[in-house]
Amino acid sequence: MANAEQIRKVCSIITSDPERRVVVVSAPGKRFGSDTKVTDLLIECTNRFLKSEDHEEVLEKIISRFREIAADLGLGDKIVIDIENNIRTRLQMGYDSEEKLMDRMKAAGEDNAARLVAAYLKSIGYQAQYLNPKDAGLFLSDEYGNARVLPQSIKNLKKIKDMKGIVIFPGFFGYSLSGDVVTFPRGGSDITGSILSAALEVDVYENFTDVDSVFAASPKLIENPKPISVLTYREMRELAYAGFTVLHEDTLEPVYQKGIPVNIRNTNNPDAPGTLITPMRDASMSPVAGIAGGTGFCSINIHKYMMNREIGFGRKVLQILEEEFVPFEHMPSGIDDISIIIRKQYMDDEKKSRIMERIAKDLRVDSVNIEYDLGLVMVVGEGMMHTVGIAARITKALAKSGINIRMINQGSSEVSIMFGVSEADVDKAIVCIYDEFFR
Amino acid sequence: MANAEQIRKVCSIITSDPERRVVVVSAPGKRFGSDTKVTDLLIECTNRFLKSEDHEEVLEKIISRFREIAADLGLGDKIVIDIENNIRTRLQMGYDSEEKLMDRMKAAGEDNAARLVAAYLKSIGYQAQYLNPKDAGLFLSDEYGNARVLPQSIKNLKKIKDMKGIVIFPGFFGYSLSGDVVTFPRGGSDITGSILSAALEVDVYENFTDVDSVFAASPKLIENPKPISVLTYREMRELAYAGFTVLHEDTLEPVYQKGIPVNIRNTNNPDAPGTLITPMRDASMSPVAGIAGGTGFCSINIHKYMMNREIGFGRKVLQILEEEFVPFEHMPSGIDDISIIIRKQYMDDEKKSRIMERIAKDLRVDSVNIEYDLGLVMVVGEGMMHTVGIAARITKALAKSGINIRMINQGSSEVSIMFGVSEADVDKAIVCIYDEFFR
Repeated sequence: MANAEQIRKVCSIITSDPERRVVVVSAPGKRFGSDTKVTDLLIECTNRFLKSEDHEEVLEKIISRFREIAADLGLGDKIVIDIENNIRTRLQMGYDSEEKLMDRMKAAGEDNAARLVAAYLKSIGYQAQYLNPKDAGLFLSDEYGNARVLPQSIKNLKKIKDMKGIVIFPGFFGYSLSGDVVTFPRGGSDITGSILSAALEVDVYENFTDVDSVFAASPKLIENPKPISVLTYREMRELAYAGFTVLHEDTLEPVYQKGIPVNIRNTNNPDAPGTLITPMRDASMSPVAGIAGGTGFCSINIHKYMMNREIGFGRKVLQILEEEFVPFEHMPSGIDDISIIIRKQYMDDEKKSRIMERIAKDLRVDSVNIEYDLGLVMVVGEGMMHTVGIAARITKALAKSGINIRMINQGSSEVSIMFGVSEADVDKAIVCIYDEFFR
Repeated sequence: MANAEQIRKVCSIITSDPERRVVVVSAPGKRFGSDTKVTDLLIECTNRFLKSEDHEEVLEKIISRFREIAADLGLGDKIVIDIENNIRTRLQMGYDSEEKLMDRMKAAGEDNAARLVAAYLKSIGYQAQYLNPKDAGLFLSDEYGNARVLPQSIKNLKKIKDMKGIVIFPGFFGYSLSGDVVTFPRGGSDITGSILSAALEVDVYENFTDVDSVFAASPKLIENPKPISVLTYREMRELAYAGFTVLHEDTLEPVYQKGIPVNIRNTNNPDAPGTLITPMRDASMSPVAGIAGGTGFCSINIHKYMMNREIGFGRKVLQILEEEFVPFEHMPSGIDDISIIIRKQYMDDEKKSRIMERIAKDLRVDSVNIEYDLGLVMVVGEGMMHTVGIAARITKALAKSGINIRMINQGSSEVSIMFGVSEADVDKAIVCIYDEFFR
């Protein structure tokens, strides 16, 4: 949605298939590498306003982005005046908390982009209308910047089915029950699309982005990686956990509940079939779907003789972590040993020493230490668990590349095997596993 | 200790090395396959006595076992009369609980075997004496049939050092602080030996049994398996957990604490060097020490969308198990999945349905099921974790044999990798991994 050319592409995609009835739009993004997204300009403007600094220049930048697009689309002055009023009013209409004002401002990008698209579609002869989320009944929890949809919204949104023509719906925000604008986390336009898809029980949720498809491994590591044509929800979740960032992590929940397929497609190459994310797929021909990896993990290693005879030991360790608000990722265990894998971001030095001391003292262990520098590599694929020899091919590939495996976690999830390696080995591991299965 | 011939062998071993100063003996075992161990006869006799059934015939069988041995050793009548009096007195001297009487009777096998051995050594010209555990100060907790050593015993037992000649000490039992006989779990003579070794800080605890050594895999599965010459405590523990039964599981604790090596040797082949169990070994030449496996496990598999976002989820699952007194073995986890491996023996139908219902209701999971038919195969070896390619060789061997791996747990214990397979595949898995590393 960065400029008129992109909006024309989007509208040509919308109008090329009469089944494309409900469209969720995001805010204008970057026109070139060093450009600033409209949402980021809105945040800057609001921050300046809150600090009573000069915000007019930034505000003008925002308005001029819309003005430029409107002009290039040949839409005339009226809509530009409307948009300018809309944004200025948001800033001036008063606020009882800073976060309320921030969410109201942040939403201006999507909201006005939706008005522009609806106006453009009408100008080229289509029946189209902008729909405000409040009028549609999209109510959210009042967690500013991190809202969740309220259950009653689903019933409200069903009425969109009765609307005539193409409905243009702004993404990223809804309204609290007290009538204030509330936004989803960043990237939340995908969430709006997913909620509408679930409410309307659509045949497919098409998610237009800027890549041709999801790939079997990151294009940053592999030249021309294999595009994935079909992927299951579970595979997508596991890949997203380990570093794939095509869809926001929360996005799939609403469509997942309804079993609605998601089609990731490229706005700039709309004829490419993209990647279809479905509840199930035939995995017999390709047991491995993709490989992802991430760094930033650490492992607390505990040794205590006869640990496995002590009922409640594992529970007590987890309790200590819980009381320190540290979520754990995994917990591999031996007979006298247990390791807890956590994300480094949750551990500061103070928490670390408190946790280590409590484990040592309260649980009277023989030894406890913490190992940083842990990366996780995830090999994901439905049916992998039922194909003999997958683990053998992966471990052999890692061995041939001289990578020491510090942890293997297989057996709970049916769709993934997880390997712990040094952080420095993560990329190399992804490449060699990719080569084994896809070269 | 089954007959005079065996006792002569034992005494020849004792006297062949003047360093063999303290000897722990067990009760007379089976003389032939269908024979009954003296300890089992003592249990039967006590049960009959307690039910006021005729017990005289069994009692006579027990006494005649000792009479036969004494006669064959040429020891004369006096010791036989003493032994008969000893056993009859145990039965007749009254009791305030059935378990006290049972332990007092069970201990008669070891106690009188020790008297016989001491008498025989004296008869062939050695300075030897029977030492009663009460006189030695071996005090145990009053958990009948399942006692643990009390800390003050260690200091008491040190005085044995000052005794002259060869000390013959009966295994398997000690005394409560109130003066009653209390026994260890079955096989507990090894525990007595281990406690004495620790108290006396001996150079080596020689454990004479009926095998030449510990083998890299069970001789029931592998013809002429590779004998293990040196094994670490940790390796022995992991192998014992997964099915190796050479030493009783509790046996190693006292020597482990003191770092005393254990030498497993064969009474029937005393020149064989046996297996030495030590705190550490040089693992560079043989990263894998042995392979063991066991059946009787099951897995509770829980799926909940966004599980890994829920702080406290794993702890709550373990808490439910703890409240039902079910110890867990391992807990592999995915993103939205967690599996709890437990031993089937702890789960009856009633517990199972209570646990499943609580997990489903209290934790509001998407699905929970229980999978029986899980076997665990453990590949054990110090330094395995630091040798690249071990996991690859194992998984390749399993794949070549067509064995599906249901679980891999590696990373916590430095000395083992654990594989979950169908119970039916356990033996096959051990054989093919053995072939990979030892053929």
